[in-house]
Amino acid sequence: MAPKLTAEEITSFLDEVFPQSRGTMSIEEVGPMRARMRFHVTEAHLRPGGTVSGPTMFTLADCAFYVAVLAMIGREALTVTTNLNINFLHKPAPRDMIGEARILKLGRLLATGEATLWSEGDDRPVAHATMSYAIPPKDDLG
Amino acid sequence: MAPKLTAEEITSFLDEVFPQSRGTMSIEEVGPMRARMRFHVTEAHLRPGGTVSGPTMFTLADCAFYVAVLAMIGREALTVTTNLNINFLHKPAPRDMIGEARILKLGRLLATGEATLWSEGDDRPVAHATMSYAIPPKDDLG
Amino acid sequence: MAPKLTAEEITSFLDEVFPQSRGTMSIEEVGPMRARMRFHVTEAHLRPGGTVSGPTMFTLADCAFYVAVLAMIGREALTVTTNLNINFLHKPAPRDMIGEARILKLGRLLATGEATLWSEGDDRPVAHATMSYAIPPKDDLG
Amino acid sequence: MAPKLTAEEITSFLDEVFPQSRGTMSIEEVGPMRARMRFHVTEAHLRPGGTVSGPTMFTLADCAFYVAVLAMIGREALTVTTNLNINFLHKPAPRDMIGEARILKLGRLLATGEATLWSEGDDRPVAHATMSYAIPPKDDLG
Repeated sequence: MAPKLTAEEITSFLDEVFPQSRGTMSIEEVGPMRARMRFHVTEAHLRPGGTVSGPTMFTLADCAFYVAVLAMIGREALTVTTNLNINFLHKPAPRDMIGEARILKLGRLLATGEATLWSEGDDRPVAHATMSYAIPPKDDLG
Repeated sequence: MAPKLTAEEITSFLDEVFPQSRGTMSIEEVGPMRARMRFHVTEAHLRPGGTVSGPTMFTLADCAFYVAVLAMIGREALTVTTNLNINFLHKPAPRDMIGEARILKLGRLLATGEATLWSEGDDRPVAHATMSYAIPPKDDLG
Repeated sequence: MAPKLTAEEITSFLDEVFPQSRGTMSIEEVGPMRARMRFHVTEAHLRPGGTVSGPTMFTLADCAFYVAVLAMIGREALTVTTNLNINFLHKPAPRDMIGEARILKLGRLLATGEATLWSEGDDRPVAHATMSYAIPPKDDLG
Repeated sequence: MAPKLTAEEITSFLDEVFPQSRGTMSIEEVGPMRARMRFHVTEAHLRPGGTVSGPTMFTLADCAFYVAVLAMIGREALTVTTNLNINFLHKPAPRDMIGEARILKLGRLLATGEATLWSEGDDRPVAHATMSYAIPPKDDLG
């Protein structure tokens, strides 16, 4: 199943819907049931000791999976994160972070997947997350 | 088992260690194996549609549990979040958010607990999280 | 919101639908958005060292929440566990185990809740779980 | 980092330590930081409708990861599952189930990994789990 949207089309959509996040992350690649994103880490995303903060890693995992889902279902869809489970594995370096997300199941009502995060240039994962999104049928989940 | 630190002592410690977070959250209450925190929600924490962002809820759950653990083990301890699982339940209101954390197990090496989050003035939880912290013995977990 | 079914009605339903589980567990109490179950632990559920096995605890957490949901939505509903996250806290004693489940959100499509497990007669929780169930609208989730 | 134990050595160890599980599962392959196991599904592991039960999938995910960890740290080690998060993706077929586990981090105190489960002969995953094991230093975690 090929993606319905390209990386460029998703970037335009996100810039329009989440203007405040513009420039924070960029989509590196979109493929069938997967996406790779970069988080442009700045001083604001660091913790004392020079490590990238937990909420920054949460954001990257969540967004990489969101992009993977958007690519498959198209820009008209509204989705809501219902569950995210994250394991922190190694202290990240104070550098850009890469997130690779993969859809494990794309159901009509629920999409489930995983994301692995790396500090750029290091092949040891710093965090791993699994998550589910509700894809509301017509009206909101409430 | 009574807490070793008061809310005031933990606030001083956090202001010193995480100066950049000063003013974002405040400790409302600390008790045996539990803590209640307030997140001062501003425009910066909102998503389109006026709802509080996922990373903001992640931060509140993580910090409320951190405060509950600090209160019990004292300020000298270094801890590292190893796992956080969060279920998003209802769309939060664009208001301050309250997080109540409870320690389920305080082991020598691992602390595990849960946190429930509410929009202020609403008794329906907006999110629920469980999490574990590693409490390194002497040297780093690496 | 009062339960639609009593403990006795749910027991009859489960005996009919899951005849092979008859006698393994019993419902101790059903209330609004919650249920308490007992797992009748026998030799078959023990691990070397006399501790109750992980799958037994998984089963009790899942079933206690299932009963809490059934009580609220009635016996006609088909539900499917989509996610279960369990933290093992203390080594259980080789005795009956009690599980208390609580519904955190009962949506039209998704129910989310938590369960705490105890060895009978011990007030220290041995495990804590959160879980979600899909409640399919008309046809199967696929 | 090569495994310290072969599939045969781990099988002997498990037969000795968990005699009651003998014949339930078999190790198909062990490699660096990973293992593949087969669950021999029988009538006892099925639910009404002919689907494999949730606790059976929990068991396979947990054991496949246990085998991957044992292979790397050797048979003398005592480990304890501290957290397991499982997403159920598709209804399994009433056939043998294959579980592939991968270690994401092998720390001194904590090992974290993931497992993907398939019904034999079907390339669509039926479940995905992540889990952590505590590796107690000398004395028990308590």
